[in-house]
Amino acid sequence: MRNIKLTLAYDGTDFSGWQIQPGQATVQGTLAEVLEKLTQSPILIHGAGRTDAGVHAAGQVANFKTESPLSPNDFQRACNALLPPSIRVVAAEEAAPEFHSRWNALAKTYSYRIFRGRIVPPFAWRYVHQDSSPLDFAAMAEAARRFEGEHDFTTFAASTGSEEDDRERLTTRTIFRSELVRCAEQSISGQAPAEEWVYVVRGKSFLRYMVRKIVGTLVEVGRGKLTPDDIPNLLAMRDRSKSGPTMPPQGLCMMGVEYESTAQTIAIDDAGSAAG
Amino acid sequence: MRNIKLTLAYDGTDFSGWQIQPGQATVQGTLAEVLEKLTQSPILIHGAGRTDAGVHAAGQVANFKTESPLSPNDFQRACNALLPPSIRVVAAEEAAPEFHSRWNALAKTYSYRIFRGRIVPPFAWRYVHQDSSPLDFAAMAEAARRFEGEHDFTTFAASTGSEEDDRERLTTRTIFRSELVRCAEQSISGQAPAEEWVYVVRGKSFLRYMVRKIVGTLVEVGRGKLTPDDIPNLLAMRDRSKSGPTMPPQGLCMMGVEYESTAQTIAIDDAGSAAG
Repeated sequence: MRNIKLTLAYDGTDFSGWQIQPGQATVQGTLAEVLEKLTQSPILIHGAGRTDAGVHAAGQVANFKTESPLSPNDFQRACNALLPPSIRVVAAEEAAPEFHSRWNALAKTYSYRIFRGRIVPPFAWRYVHQDSSPLDFAAMAEAARRFEGEHDFTTFAASTGSEEDDRERLTTRTIFRSELVRCAEQSISGQAPAEEWVYVVRGKSFLRYMVRKIVGTLVEVGRGKLTPDDIPNLLAMRDRSKSGPTMPPQGLCMMGVEYESTAQTIAIDDAGSAAG
Repeated sequence: MRNIKLTLAYDGTDFSGWQIQPGQATVQGTLAEVLEKLTQSPILIHGAGRTDAGVHAAGQVANFKTESPLSPNDFQRACNALLPPSIRVVAAEEAAPEFHSRWNALAKTYSYRIFRGRIVPPFAWRYVHQDSSPLDFAAMAEAARRFEGEHDFTTFAASTGSEEDDRERLTTRTIFRSELVRCAEQSISGQAPAEEWVYVVRGKSFLRYMVRKIVGTLVEVGRGKLTPDDIPNLLAMRDRSKSGPTMPPQGLCMMGVEYESTAQTIAIDDAGSAAG
């Protein structure tokens, strides 16, 4: 069995998230349908992360096993011809048999875009959360830094719906980078360019809703309801009810997934067939 | 009767163009519905240009007469609350009674985006035409310049469907700027950033499909089927069958409309009411 690694970008607006669900348009389901058509056999796709409904990806990674003789290039071209324009295969590679997009991920990076202008351009509303109210950027940026390191993120976890499960889940996560950055949005029609604040977080893995709850908490810091020094205390509380609100999905984008670069990808010779 | 000038941005993907049509979602129709709800009276909206189905605007200008006491700011806020996110009122002003968004326009600027990469990002497909085939940029840029000046644009006009009408229509137009520029597109997920070529044209007014036919002709120059020196000859032929193809709508965007700045807009004092 060959193992094919795909790098995917998608606009999550019109999908009920990544994970396949009967009767719903999902990214995994849409991709599986296309791959099954191409290979004429059932395909199990593993995604590096299960993005929720409305969340986007610029660099989701997935892998699947197949006996199809199609080259990675063929898979890429055929998928892009059959998929809707809202899902693109931006890269396809032959991977080692043991490669698993989720278990082998060393780091994932997410971004959350907060549009600070009063009027969201019609070309951007799918990809940003708008908040033009007064917010203290410096305090939020400082608070963002407090999430770096290894912490128990129970306070920033979604409930599983079962108290027992909630207690038993492993909720310790390592965050390598947690930063709020300012960007200038393109101006439309002679209007002053609006600012955009982008929260960028890179970590080994994340709990469900964790990024959106962190951003919701940063916004509370921006409003002065919390201070940066409250972050370590919130983490220590391990209490789901103490975080800020879960922010809406459309601002969130899975930017990329990192792997040990050489180990998982088989070198391909110029003719396009796997070498070794 | 007051005269309100609106500057509009919209994503044309899901609209059957600007112009109101029974039973179809149009920008003018959607806006009229909202303004009629706000003013409780019929509203006739004049647009500076009638963008076709799938064509976008970053700076369309429209005006309408009303006896409503709502301030321009109120109109803007209420419209943006009631309109879909794909249409935004980016500015609203009190205009002189004689101001007409179409007849008073001194210049309009359109852009046409050609995405040169192999894979269109899922966040961009609504706004670009893709062509990653080999094209001679320098020849296209030179050809673009040949459209500047006053010309009879019959060769680049859509047929009205009637030979007699076609003969009688005034087809002379003045183009102030006609330029092809290169831009670097944002890269997705570590891929090399793709190039984007943007055709920018500024003129007094345009014939229907004229910009899209000019771009279709530039692409034929890029492929070597025509040379820049053919452009003056094509213009001289005044033959609709001689232009390149009409390019698809999604690459086209109405960027802005210019007016004599002081004449048409009444000065507004700080309190927001018209002064004088």
